[in-house]
Amino acid sequence: LTFFLFSFFQYLLSWQYMIKIITVKSKDSLIPYLSRAKNDLAEAIFQVIPILEDVKKNGDIAVRNYTKKFDGIELKKVSFDPKELVSNLTQEQKQAFEVAKKNITEFHKLQLQDGVEKEISGNRLGFKFTPMERVGVYAPGGKALYPSSVLMGAIPAKLANVKEVHLFTPPGEDGNVPDSLIYAAQISGIDRIHLIGGAQAIAAAGYGTETIPKVDFIVGPGNRYVAAAKAYLSGIGQIGIESIAGPSEVFIIADETANPEWVACDLLSQAEHGEDSVAILACTSQELATNVSNEIEKALRTRTKRKEMKEAAIYNNSAIFIFSNIDECIEFSNEFAPEHLEIITKNFEKDFEKITNAGSVFLGSYSPVAMGDYITGTNHVLPTAGLCKIYSSLGVDNFRKRITYQEVRKDSLKNLYPYVKILSDLEGLDEEHGTSVLVRTL
Amino acid sequence: LTFFLFSFFQYLLSWQYMIKIITVKSKDSLIPYLSRAKNDLAEAIFQVIPILEDVKKNGDIAVRNYTKKFDGIELKKVSFDPKELVSNLTQEQKQAFEVAKKNITEFHKLQLQDGVEKEISGNRLGFKFTPMERVGVYAPGGKALYPSSVLMGAIPAKLANVKEVHLFTPPGEDGNVPDSLIYAAQISGIDRIHLIGGAQAIAAAGYGTETIPKVDFIVGPGNRYVAAAKAYLSGIGQIGIESIAGPSEVFIIADETANPEWVACDLLSQAEHGEDSVAILACTSQELATNVSNEIEKALRTRTKRKEMKEAAIYNNSAIFIFSNIDECIEFSNEFAPEHLEIITKNFEKDFEKITNAGSVFLGSYSPVAMGDYITGTNHVLPTAGLCKIYSSLGVDNFRKRITYQEVRKDSLKNLYPYVKILSDLEGLDEEHGTSVLVRTL
Repeated sequence: LTFFLFSFFQYLLSWQYMIKIITVKSKDSLIPYLSRAKNDLAEAIFQVIPILEDVKKNGDIAVRNYTKKFDGIELKKVSFDPKELVSNLTQEQKQAFEVAKKNITEFHKLQLQDGVEKEISGNRLGFKFTPMERVGVYAPGGKALYPSSVLMGAIPAKLANVKEVHLFTPPGEDGNVPDSLIYAAQISGIDRIHLIGGAQAIAAAGYGTETIPKVDFIVGPGNRYVAAAKAYLSGIGQIGIESIAGPSEVFIIADETANPEWVACDLLSQAEHGEDSVAILACTSQELATNVSNEIEKALRTRTKRKEMKEAAIYNNSAIFIFSNIDECIEFSNEFAPEHLEIITKNFEKDFEKITNAGSVFLGSYSPVAMGDYITGTNHVLPTAGLCKIYSSLGVDNFRKRITYQEVRKDSLKNLYPYVKILSDLEGLDEEHGTSVLVRTL
Repeated sequence: LTFFLFSFFQYLLSWQYMIKIITVKSKDSLIPYLSRAKNDLAEAIFQVIPILEDVKKNGDIAVRNYTKKFDGIELKKVSFDPKELVSNLTQEQKQAFEVAKKNITEFHKLQLQDGVEKEISGNRLGFKFTPMERVGVYAPGGKALYPSSVLMGAIPAKLANVKEVHLFTPPGEDGNVPDSLIYAAQISGIDRIHLIGGAQAIAAAGYGTETIPKVDFIVGPGNRYVAAAKAYLSGIGQIGIESIAGPSEVFIIADETANPEWVACDLLSQAEHGEDSVAILACTSQELATNVSNEIEKALRTRTKRKEMKEAAIYNNSAIFIFSNIDECIEFSNEFAPEHLEIITKNFEKDFEKITNAGSVFLGSYSPVAMGDYITGTNHVLPTAGLCKIYSSLGVDNFRKRITYQEVRKDSLKNLYPYVKILSDLEGLDEEHGTSVLVRTL
């Protein structure tokens, strides 16, 4: 009996600690996963406003005070020219950055759209693209350094011909710029490094200080307070941002051709980002679901770094859904609108055609998300929490704007005047709007 | 003596009531005009949050209550299918809308960018564009109706293949949809009209109610509370917006070839929008400056509609700057980053090449802003308050997003794995990120 009870207890435990497997009978079971946290920033916004106002008013002094308060460090020097710094990376490490840079550059060049001009109703109409003048890249610091994000932010900006790119990153414990960030900054063309983190960095970027110039636009991931500062300052038009970054997500659509071990690795590699990460598998086979779940358990026993974080993400936020066919998986994925989407199916190309909402998509068996995170060339700064329904991955177009223009010809002006008169009459703007056209017809 | 005093008094008065003419000796004289109001929404945001929360929680009932409270009307019916409404416009009025539609459609088609695919480092990388599913167009109501803005919002959305476009507009005094809005909605493909205005309309659009579906994105001008609601809800990721609309602006660069009467008309037509409008002339000739000022005075005496509004805008917010050459005018314009820019110079084409920041540009003597407002085909929903340094006019691209994708090949995966290993090591993400690639190389 003791043995039986013990086994039963063990069973309960193991049941409790496994990824949820949900056989989808109705859409109701999907709703909790669709309405995932929108990274509700309201509270954090109220907390950061005093910091933003302080930096706006008191500039460098306020920035130094917050660095002392939040990072516990008194800096001798805040701003650096990356060209004057030396990075102690190995040759192999440097080469890895070089390969990443080459691929990111080649991919992002594809996004450089040309201007267009056309005669329409007798007038010459067109648009051209011009770069922003000065932008910021934020890179989080502390335990998790993301030098790869420096490349993802700065390379598209430089391809767009932005004049100055400024890196904002919290100081390391020794008050220096970490080696990997120095090298990433150097090869991606960062013009200036500022050792500031948190909401105070976004405030310095948005308002400028005595020593830090205001930037037009700032990109890159950060913690809750960085996100709140970005949301608020972009909301009031003080700075542009790419979109608000929430917890990272992967969604995998897989059929029976998928390798369960590989799928488990991909789910876990998302979980490795943080305990709030979300990893979803949508498949059509109970067998695959069970095998993937077993592979996850095996991996969690053998690969134990960041174990609590990974378990929290997998057991609390993640799930395996079993649908009756791939089209249902695709439909759920489109509603979920994942940051990262893997399609590991026989007909992944056809299945991809049906995808309407996703940040970055990974096709077939040999395309784990980690390849895009680091080396293939696509951008890993992506909308989360369903925001890829409206926003795109970071790209060259974030750093340029379209200026439309027109040359109206005298004949066309005469022909079109009656319509301007009618439409401006309807809007009560006939007197000056109408007259400004009329005087040119006389 | 009495006569002398009287004349002197008159002189003072007339001096007081003329557009400011500033001969630029140093950049200091420009600063007050550069730092124009960023439409500071902080206060309005705090005022609208309770309304947004109420609509989120109580849906249709809350919307009806606010319509009663703010618009003073109890609606029998809130939502309409435009196909079921009849518009009593004249044939001429209808034709004016049709011509505008044709030109707007033709111009915005030029913005439909195609996807691209390329082999990079042995992998297949690309991006494709997909439309948003459901968007909203906001049109202000009350005394100033803007049916033209309905076309500017809905036509690019429909060209982008957005499935559903919803029009939000405050009810007229009789509780009906105004004729001009009905027709604009019909020809621009609006799927549903909701008679709601103000912050409660943005809340209904962002959260959805029992009868109004949530939209992904909402565009169009509105009052301070509409702008605040858009800023807040986009900041927290609940809805996408184009950019925050502030007071309208025109900037005119003119040399001695410009016709002073026409320039005066264009400045006044901007002033006609509201007392907070901004109209700037940057020129190189004292004579032109004086003549334009005189033409403005003449016009204000003869064309008296909206007189107080126009005078407030011209005398309080506007100015004529005299520079020593056109390049200085251009430099000021680029720093100002105007919503509308007219270049009325001998070499307007060459001068335009130097323009880096502007929303919509009007070239030569026959291109008053009013032509673009109504009929040529360019979009009149534009960033204000210097935001064209980072944002563009409304266009097809606002309603689509770019999905990037990649198919990694097995050989390339093997070749690139060492770099992924190195980079993920540096970020402390080697265990799962590295492994997810490693297992596929074995």
